[in-house]
Amino acid sequence: MKLKIKQSKLMEHLNYVIKGVSTKNLIPILNCIKMDLTSDGLYLMSTDNEIAIKTFIPRQEIEEIVETGSIVVSGKYIYEIIRKMPNNLVNLEEVVDSKLYIYNDNSSFNLNCNNVNDFPDLNLDVSKNPICIDRRIFKNIINQTSFAASTQESRPVLTGINFKIENDVMECVATDSYRLSKKTIKLNCNVENLINIIIPTKNLNELVKLINDNEEDIEMHIFNNKVIFKFDNIIMMTTLINGTYPDTAKLIPTEFMLEVSLNLNELYTALDRASLLTNQDDKNTINLETFDDKIKISSNIPEIGNVEENIIVKKNNKENIKISFSSKYMMDALKAFTADDVIICFNGEVKPIIIKSSDNQDLIELILPIRTY
Amino acid sequence: MKLKIKQSKLMEHLNYVIKGVSTKNLIPILNCIKMDLTSDGLYLMSTDNEIAIKTFIPRQEIEEIVETGSIVVSGKYIYEIIRKMPNNLVNLEEVVDSKLYIYNDNSSFNLNCNNVNDFPDLNLDVSKNPICIDRRIFKNIINQTSFAASTQESRPVLTGINFKIENDVMECVATDSYRLSKKTIKLNCNVENLINIIIPTKNLNELVKLINDNEEDIEMHIFNNKVIFKFDNIIMMTTLINGTYPDTAKLIPTEFMLEVSLNLNELYTALDRASLLTNQDDKNTINLETFDDKIKISSNIPEIGNVEENIIVKKNNKENIKISFSSKYMMDALKAFTADDVIICFNGEVKPIIIKSSDNQDLIELILPIRTY
Repeated sequence: MKLKIKQSKLMEHLNYVIKGVSTKNLIPILNCIKMDLTSDGLYLMSTDNEIAIKTFIPRQEIEEIVETGSIVVSGKYIYEIIRKMPNNLVNLEEVVDSKLYIYNDNSSFNLNCNNVNDFPDLNLDVSKNPICIDRRIFKNIINQTSFAASTQESRPVLTGINFKIENDVMECVATDSYRLSKKTIKLNCNVENLINIIIPTKNLNELVKLINDNEEDIEMHIFNNKVIFKFDNIIMMTTLINGTYPDTAKLIPTEFMLEVSLNLNELYTALDRASLLTNQDDKNTINLETFDDKIKISSNIPEIGNVEENIIVKKNNKENIKISFSSKYMMDALKAFTADDVIICFNGEVKPIIIKSSDNQDLIELILPIRTY
Repeated sequence: MKLKIKQSKLMEHLNYVIKGVSTKNLIPILNCIKMDLTSDGLYLMSTDNEIAIKTFIPRQEIEEIVETGSIVVSGKYIYEIIRKMPNNLVNLEEVVDSKLYIYNDNSSFNLNCNNVNDFPDLNLDVSKNPICIDRRIFKNIINQTSFAASTQESRPVLTGINFKIENDVMECVATDSYRLSKKTIKLNCNVENLINIIIPTKNLNELVKLINDNEEDIEMHIFNNKVIFKFDNIIMMTTLINGTYPDTAKLIPTEFMLEVSLNLNELYTALDRASLLTNQDDKNTINLETFDDKIKISSNIPEIGNVEENIIVKKNNKENIKISFSSKYMMDALKAFTADDVIICFNGEVKPIIIKSSDNQDLIELILPIRTY
């Protein structure tokens, strides 16, 4: 393998594949990046066995391809070396004793390489009928749901986001069993068979970081045990989580005792202040009480002091409620909305609280109240 | 105590005094801020017994002074509460049961206060004849020397910066016994008696963060056991370190076997790259070898690979040297210079390396070589 390439171009693609390089894996080959130089261009690949990332630099974006070939080299070292090279041309060449020689006029590095055959043989072939989704919508789905997924490995299915696709409707749900986020979108295509899969949340969060903003769709290729996402010249594969996702449809009420609509930012900043006087050990419990035209949010830490926040609201009837919940969970839920106003729906002090936007019903956030007496 | 004040004005001053609030002190009163409201204005004070910070908001910058008085309240809580209040007027009032009532139209906090008499009684009176220093020069002194001070408590004097003033010359030295930084400036005034004090480096680093950029001098008031810095409406007191600072003058050679001058940025970026292949456990040892018109920097980690960097230089004679040193220490030293070119001076492979600017001799950096054979 021997080529000459702009440092900035190689860096752009190393920035993608480095996210697939394992940082704490004890298997050295999983800390590596594989480079495949063909007459078409340069493929870069990384995997930690749960995800794989592959990018492609076409030959016209490479200054000179002298000799094709493959090498496998430490991801961390090649990434840092290229990052610190000047923004200019850089040469990469496989030399005797399976070393990678990286050089320009003033700098030269020799990096020991691993055996190319030891690198996992990944099948990253895509399917013929991907589901195509606007990339901004796709990023929104992940950002508006992922925070509600569980981080506890005790129930593995809850550490993922459930994607359910029926005809042209895709429902994405995340829950840690104390709160739930559900986003529904309409696809441009119809799927033939019902799809119901669980994708690891942490892999989706990594994926979102890889997706640049542009107009093009992201392709979702669904297989039995994996999903492949394809966009620009990048392929990202993630394994799926085995198991059955809980049926969450019946948990979400559609009729309410009381609906309160109010300004999102006013509510968020009031919760942010009031949560200063809550305890993390105590789940950041905060109290909310409704009155005719306002709500009162209050909390206290006896040794420190107390706080009371008042917000003007509109109610859909004369009912009132006193309820307690985690201010952190409520703030996480509110961050998922972009509308000016939100509607908070109650069915009683021990029943789930639902948060919706006043604009549309695509996104539903649910949090369970906390019994305080 | 009762007053009304702009949130942004109070926040500006809380940002100063919060830096004097202890974060891990077990004595609760040292986690507090004292507020003294007089007819002149509002004084804010904090101390952790090693430093003290006092700021002043004059009455014309306060919306309304209703009743003078003093309170002592948790620094962390009042800081966070005011920080999260809207940018508008905020009321502070001492109420029954020694609580501080903080409120505006929608938000109200009650914070438990501590006993005013328990707050340390600090003597922050200034002297009549301070040493006045341009604040940009003063900040430079600290930034160009502090990194070389020791962080090990085993030799307390080395954790400080030594300020030595004789007539109108101030010499500031920091060393951890492996490297040394020395900055010399000329003062606008003459001091009568020789001054030789050691100020804790961490307190000087905090002080630098408090100093805004403007044209005015900073006043340095030196006492037996403390220094008080005064600038704008801020006073910062720090205790001194007891003990005798080593006499460093004789450590710094003035004649050299070889002087090499080269571009600062080229040297820095080459060291930055080459240090990728050094070990922290091994003091980031790097090798430098001089040739007729260039130097070669090299290092290696046997399992990973090796690196070689070449830089064009000018030498003052035909001597050559092979020497090893810590790339981290050399990079720290180079960061202290702003000139385009630096001069590196050698006296042999086990003798101190001196780095100077080609512009002037105000700043001298010294690092000891590492014996590698």
